[in-house]
Amino acid sequence: MAKALLTPRAVDFPRWYQDVIAKAELAENGPARGSMVIRPNGYALWERMQRELDDRIKAAGAANAYFPLLIPESYLRREAEHVEGFSPELAVVTIGGGKELEEPLVIRPTSETVIGESMAKWVDSYRDLPLLLNQWANVVRWELRPRLFLRTTEFLWQEGHTAHVSEVEARDYARRILHDVYEDVLVNVLGLPVVVGRKTARERFSGATSTYTLEAMMGDGKALQMGTSHELGQNFARAFGIEYLASSGRRELAWTTSWGITTRLIGGVVMAHGDDLGLRVPPRVAPVQVQVLVVKDGDGVALAAHKLTGALQDAGVRVALDERVDVPFGRRAIDAELKGYPVRIEIGPRDVAEGRVVVVRRVTGEKAMVPADTAVKLVAEALEDGQRALYDDALAEQQRRTAEVTSVDEAIEAASSGWARLSWSAIGTEGEATLNARGVTVRCLVRADGGVPDSEDEPGLVAVVGRAY
Amino acid sequence: MAKALLTPRAVDFPRWYQDVIAKAELAENGPARGSMVIRPNGYALWERMQRELDDRIKAAGAANAYFPLLIPESYLRREAEHVEGFSPELAVVTIGGGKELEEPLVIRPTSETVIGESMAKWVDSYRDLPLLLNQWANVVRWELRPRLFLRTTEFLWQEGHTAHVSEVEARDYARRILHDVYEDVLVNVLGLPVVVGRKTARERFSGATSTYTLEAMMGDGKALQMGTSHELGQNFARAFGIEYLASSGRRELAWTTSWGITTRLIGGVVMAHGDDLGLRVPPRVAPVQVQVLVVKDGDGVALAAHKLTGALQDAGVRVALDERVDVPFGRRAIDAELKGYPVRIEIGPRDVAEGRVVVVRRVTGEKAMVPADTAVKLVAEALEDGQRALYDDALAEQQRRTAEVTSVDEAIEAASSGWARLSWSAIGTEGEATLNARGVTVRCLVRADGGVPDSEDEPGLVAVVGRAY
Repeated sequence: MAKALLTPRAVDFPRWYQDVIAKAELAENGPARGSMVIRPNGYALWERMQRELDDRIKAAGAANAYFPLLIPESYLRREAEHVEGFSPELAVVTIGGGKELEEPLVIRPTSETVIGESMAKWVDSYRDLPLLLNQWANVVRWELRPRLFLRTTEFLWQEGHTAHVSEVEARDYARRILHDVYEDVLVNVLGLPVVVGRKTARERFSGATSTYTLEAMMGDGKALQMGTSHELGQNFARAFGIEYLASSGRRELAWTTSWGITTRLIGGVVMAHGDDLGLRVPPRVAPVQVQVLVVKDGDGVALAAHKLTGALQDAGVRVALDERVDVPFGRRAIDAELKGYPVRIEIGPRDVAEGRVVVVRRVTGEKAMVPADTAVKLVAEALEDGQRALYDDALAEQQRRTAEVTSVDEAIEAASSGWARLSWSAIGTEGEATLNARGVTVRCLVRADGGVPDSEDEPGLVAVVGRAY
Repeated sequence: MAKALLTPRAVDFPRWYQDVIAKAELAENGPARGSMVIRPNGYALWERMQRELDDRIKAAGAANAYFPLLIPESYLRREAEHVEGFSPELAVVTIGGGKELEEPLVIRPTSETVIGESMAKWVDSYRDLPLLLNQWANVVRWELRPRLFLRTTEFLWQEGHTAHVSEVEARDYARRILHDVYEDVLVNVLGLPVVVGRKTARERFSGATSTYTLEAMMGDGKALQMGTSHELGQNFARAFGIEYLASSGRRELAWTTSWGITTRLIGGVVMAHGDDLGLRVPPRVAPVQVQVLVVKDGDGVALAAHKLTGALQDAGVRVALDERVDVPFGRRAIDAELKGYPVRIEIGPRDVAEGRVVVVRRVTGEKAMVPADTAVKLVAEALEDGQRALYDDALAEQQRRTAEVTSVDEAIEAASSGWARLSWSAIGTEGEATLNARGVTVRCLVRADGGVPDSEDEPGLVAVVGRAY
């Protein structure tokens, strides 16, 4: 069994991450540098995340559409900061249909430019606004130091793009997505106690006037940026001519936003919740919430296992049945822990004889023998408890590893094992450069009460500082 | 209002198609040659088609996964027929991260090769088979004469890839997908009376040993290939080393299949069901099944319209409410017809005063004044009727335009306005070349009883012949 064990997290966290991704069969490297194959176990997680996000995006009024993968190189050049930000990361198609292309095509690193072009066509008067679009797509950004889910040359995401009549409306919408879609899913579905704040000018998206972010702490104390929502001001509207006839009769430039969340979410769930036994998948997002494990064959065992599986399905639980009794039970139990099913129910001949089952909770490891006819009710409770416990654990860990400090030097010190919080005025542009030189970044700025600032010049802002993936 | 009218189908069918795609806001050309922007109305249709297909693919036991967009050029060369088939259509990335690449990367035209590489890693013994995978993705095939939805350089699709222990199992699975997934969705959801058959050697997929197809007749009598399912024999298993340890203890090559269906489905629905007023969307796939149209403001009109909309929603109907009374009613009614909502309900002040609504069925154009409190029940019937009527119309049209003939010359003649059916033995390799030279193809071979042949050498086969998109 030694081969099934993972490198302990405390020994080598990156190695543990690699091990768990491989052994839980979530993903592996693809043939081209930086590419990734998302295996069925990993993709099932992504499908559930997509559904949760998509329902909320639609509830926020945005409609899905699809824009081209290949973008003329000239489009990117129209917005100066944007092209500067993305140039080093581009994959460029120079040959198509057997011929050298007259103008090379760039594989989208993001779709602001090509969507800007469409928006300009579709917007005529103020009646056409707000224009609220979203797309689910793959994007490519050349990656020199790839890591599965966290940084890969190709990744999957959703990218929302909207146009509004005013700066205030654009800001409200960017914030609505930030809170009602992203924060809601991250906190209430994925069990991640994120810090929601504003990026500094240095960390902003190329071409944005404001970037809002949600930062989660991973099991090693580092930060992972889980999603961002941007106000783009009138920069892209100007570059692509997104104009509308206002009720005043004048032609005005629209105000646009964009916002995205990616397959790195999967890596975040792994690193925030996993332990030395493997994944711990939050019940609300788990493709398999309960695994029913037949310990070994015996009188009435198969029947009891199928009956319980059916009863759980009827109760709306996502359940899988493992009857592979020709594989040693211990190996299957370890595999169930590795894959992080929130609840495992074991049924063997003795259990059937005594009318009971064994319920094992993945988060706490707690094992209980219970009457078979109470199992469905108990599972519902265990799933609720498991969801809560993962959030509480992650929050406690985040608090334990976050230091309140007063200087840049102390912040750098604290960042070796977690995050630091300090006054933004104690950092400033110069302090931020000092942090960066030591591999530490300002993850975001928040108000003292936890609110999200409108500007980095507001008085009394707190900077959350740390190392990041 | 002249500007809202479409070119009549009988005058210029391709022009009508272009008009209706544009005016129903389904899609438009993207900036790069052959690229397409799928607008929200078009994408909503695709999302519903995806859901219907995905549910059935999962019921057939396949799991979704995701494989890389970019494939090393050398991979395609490993299977001789495959590379020969796709070479002229490839888009090639030669620059990544600012540098010339040592080995160029091809944007996937399909994923047999990269998935073959993964399968070889994942399959060890017969216990790992069948391996049933599917992915939803974009692919790129350079297109010189693009047409929205039908032929675009980039398109969206699902591609299934499976590996099996024997030829019989592989064949059974390729056929299961053909009938239980594709035929079921095309016939029962999209209302398309497809002919299901086998492609001739000349029309087979590059690298396949058998290609099965579903062919639908469009409103101009031409055929559109709606989906294909392939047996790949051991060709890809040999090229990529997909081997398993058989229960006999010997290492054996697996037998693989692939199968796909694309966004051209949207074009197929438009061209098979549309009429001179616009789209006619089959109720089961319609994102909006019922539009409630407020004719003009008046006492209790808004209240009645909202109440009815709510009641329809509660009954599980997908309903949209149009209260834009500042836009002329006639224009909105014409727009509703253009967009093909299966049922339109009109409510104005006089209707409210008399406790009635006007129900208009899109397929037949039939208009009925009915008591408001019977509307929900009537809508359910109208949706059922509309679904059936579209299928019946399409089938009658297909039969009317299909000629039974006995020679290649007669088949060419018949193909000017529809399809021809004739004995495959009356065509042969030479006859097929003659047909092709005249722009006519053998769409598929079927048995006399309509069954799908195992080989093109079976006696008594019937060839279905026509022009195609």
